[in-house]
This record gives sequence, C-alpha cells and structure tokens, in this order.
Amino acid sequence: MTELERSIIARVRVEPGENVSLRERDPRDSRLFGEEKGTKSATAALAKEIDALQDRLYAEGSRALLVILQGTDTSGKDGTIRNVFNATGPLGVSVTPFGVPSKAEQAHDYLWRVHAACPRRGTIGIFNRSHYESVLVEKVRNLSSPELIEQRYDQINAFEKHLVENGTTILKFLLHISKDEQKERLQERLNDPRKHWKFNPGDLDDRTHWDEYQDAYDIMLQRCSTPHAPWHVIPADRKWVRNATIATIVKATLEEMDPQYPKAQWKPGAFTIS
Amino acid sequence: MTELERSIIARVRVEPGENVSLRERDPRDSRLFGEEKGTKSATAALAKEIDALQDRLYAEGSRALLVILQGTDTSGKDGTIRNVFNATGPLGVSVTPFGVPSKAEQAHDYLWRVHAACPRRGTIGIFNRSHYESVLVEKVRNLSSPELIEQRYDQINAFEKHLVENGTTILKFLLHISKDEQKERLQERLNDPRKHWKFNPGDLDDRTHWDEYQDAYDIMLQRCSTPHAPWHVIPADRKWVRNATIATIVKATLEEMDPQYPKAQWKPGAFTIS
Repeated sequence: MTELERSIIARVRVEPGENVSLRERDPRDSRLFGEEKGTKSATAALAKEIDALQDRLYAEGSRALLVILQGTDTSGKDGTIRNVFNATGPLGVSVTPFGVPSKAEQAHDYLWRVHAACPRRGTIGIFNRSHYESVLVEKVRNLSSPELIEQRYDQINAFEKHLVENGTTILKFLLHISKDEQKERLQERLNDPRKHWKFNPGDLDDRTHWDEYQDAYDIMLQRCSTPHAPWHVIPADRKWVRNATIATIVKATLEEMDPQYPKAQWKPGAFTIS
Repeated sequence: MTELERSIIARVRVEPGENVSLRERDPRDSRLFGEEKGTKSATAALAKEIDALQDRLYAEGSRALLVILQGTDTSGKDGTIRNVFNATGPLGVSVTPFGVPSKAEQAHDYLWRVHAACPRRGTIGIFNRSHYESVLVEKVRNLSSPELIEQRYDQINAFEKHLVENGTTILKFLLHISKDEQKERLQERLNDPRKHWKFNPGDLDDRTHWDEYQDAYDIMLQRCSTPHAPWHVIPADRKWVRNATIATIVKATLEEMDPQYPKAQWKPGAFTIS
C-alpha cells in the first residue's frame, strides 16, 4: 500500500469506538487530491486495476469482497457503482439494491434477505443500501422499538464477523453529503426530464428528518465500525472526490487481499488433446 | 434497424422449425464484417450504446432482457460477457452461471433455479449456460431418460413464452466453434499458467463426446428456436466476429425495445425544496 493510499484511508476510516460526528466531517473535503481533471483520469485508471484484481479474485475462487454503500437520497450510490465498478463489468460482480422489505422478507428476521444476497466466493458484491437500514430508517421512523434497534448493532457486528471469518472482506462506505448539496441535486431531478424518474416525492419527507438521520448515522458509525468491517465516511459533495476515494480504498483492499491464480492440481504434460 | 443489422441477424438466427445442422454452419464465417481492427472498434462503440440503452431500460423499470449463452467448453461464454457487456457495468446487469445442480436444486424441477435467477424488471440478465443443459449434458450423458428429455423441449418453450408474455425479451446465442479450435484453446490453457485454473480435465472427457453434443445442439435448435425466443448460431472460432455479432444483435434488440424514461406522475412546479 502506498503512503498516499494509507493517508486517504486514515482520513476517512472510522476507528473502532471513535466518537465520530458527521457534523465535524467536511462533505466538501478534497485536500487529499489534486485538481479535478487529473483525479478523474486517475480514478479511471484505478477502475481498470480493480478489474484486473477482480479477475484474479474470480480465478482464485475462494474469497469474496462485500462493498456496502449507505447514504441519504441523492448521495450518489448509483453513481459510485457506475464510476468505480464500470470497468469491472458484470462477470464476477453483483449489485443488490435493498428497498422496503417485501411481505415475504418481513416474514423473516432482517438479516435473512441480506445473507441470501451475500457475494459468492470469487466475486465482488455491492449492496446499494443494506441491513443498516434497520438502524437508520427504522430508527428515525420508529418502525421498530428502541429495544430491538439497540440489540441490532451487536447482531450486525456478529453477522459481519461471521462473514469475514468465512472468507468475505467487508468495506462499508457512508456517502456523506451536505443538506445544501442534497437540495441542489433534488432540484436537478425536478428540472431535468431525464431525471424525473429518480425523483420520489417521499424523499422530501425524509429530508425534513435530516438531523435525526445524521444522529442515527453517528450512532451506527460509533457502534458498527469494527476492526473486521470498518466504516468509511466519504466526502461526497464532490462526485469526483467521492469516486476517487472509494476507488482508492477498493483497489488497495483488493491488492492487500492479493488473490492468486490457483496452481494446477495436475501436471500440464499429463494431458494430450486429441 | 439498419440493413446491415438485419442481414447479420438473418444470417445467424434460426427460423422456427428450420432443419438446422451445425455441420453446415461455418464457425469461421466472417463475411459480414470488414477487417479485424475496425470491427473491434465498432464493437467497443456498440458496447457503449448498449450501456446507454441499458440506462433507459433501468429508468423505465418495466421490462427485462434475458441473454442466454450456450456453447461447449472454451467456446467463449465468459469472453463474450467481458467484451459485449463490460461497458455496461454491474448496475442493472446480473450474470448467473449454471453449473452442476446442487442437492438442494436437484430437489426441485430443473426450471426452478432458472426461474429464480431471471432478471428483475429494468435489468439485463445473462445466463452462462442455462436450462438448456437439461437437454444437452443430461441427454449426452444419459442423466435423464429419453422420455423426460423429450418432454422438456415443449416445457422450455412454454416457460420462455411465459417470461416473454410477462415482459422479458429473450435472446439465445449458441457459440459455435470447431473441434480444431477447441483443441487449440484447451492447449493454450495447458500452456499458460495464468489459464491453468480454467482447465478442467473433465473437459477432455466431454470432448470425446463431441459428435453427440453437436447432435444434441441440432435438436435443441430445431425444437426451441421460437418466434418469441429465437436461437442464434454464432460463428465463434474468431473471437472478434463472435463479439461483433452478439453486440450487434443485443444493441439492435434493445433499440427495438425502445425503453423510455418514465414520465413524472407529478408536476415539477408542485414541489419546493426547503
């Protein structure tokens, strides 16, 4: 891992037990990167490196990487997937969006559908929202009792530990945008007919709960950034900074995993093809 | 659809009821394309168009495209996914490989796991092998009785008709390679340590059944190329011809589907973002 990678990670990673507050983290922070154009080219290059590393992960076939994206509406979860993982293509990468649970899903515990969607060995799984909704929207909207929600932080930590111990590396990214930036992005969806489909009037209602969501994020970060599955708070007001930061961490993590083309269990000379 | 697209499709599409024989189809056919370099650039451009069309399909959210890839070992199923769909990225595209059914899958009918993996609305699903294995390997290896296999062609047609009537467009591609070409590609896997993991000694055993597989493909093509879900025999000895042909058909099909950004159900002026 390079010094630059190390310092980018150190800046955004939430240390276990850290008393993190989103209000003290600048969503427009771009200090670790140069100017926009060069950073965008560097991100495109990182995306290709991620592709090459994913090839090796796929060939190795024994471990997986789970990338969890959380963030308020318009924070750029889809855009992150497009920019960081587009060069990686669909072979060996799966994306699972988690919306309001269906009736069938509600008939199970909240981790049931999540476990079912976890990436198979050799692949990268990307969660667009995740089990963390159970301590975010469910908390803010009082959809579950405080007692149940209180239990969930530890349950989630135990679940993620289980995944990690069984061969899945986990990276969690909270896309951190300002309330002003959200306003601009929502307005853009209203103004641009091509973006109308992305506008959901319900988002405005969620926006009135902005502060409560920020508080819920803080608790989630404090309770669930663990040594085995760390949270990262990504400055996301600038899309190019967001993409560069996440691409850097994903690439460095895959490099640390260092997947290997498996050695043949046979001797090449043993076969003749007729 | 352009004249060129029409003629490419006409050349490789299997007409319903056509008495097709793979032995009469040239796996090295490249007549419809110019020279290699220009064709490769054109394919890369098509991949970007597919990406743009997929964006609209995703926004529309009401229909799906299912791409089924079949072909003998080394015929290039993974390579097709890489080259035709890499620009499309993982958002809105899922790849499902079908291997030997697990015990749990075998406890259900052979279409059960297939139905479960069908693409959700707004997305492209790619099957790397598919339910057709139930009339290919199971036929050649006598894993199911002739009576059961005989029933399956009609069952598969009915299943696919159901999918089409419920909003999924289906394209089926048989990657057609020669026995000589397979020999070269298997040898390459033995020679190149980076490809060792792709070599499966069992493939050599399948190779000894080459003619029986070709016969099973012929019957599958004759029985299951339907107006609603046509088969295409793709000349696949040359990878660039294979990629160009499939990219052309996928792009033309998505263009015919003509997905639309949904119209807003509200008036933009109705909302103020505070």
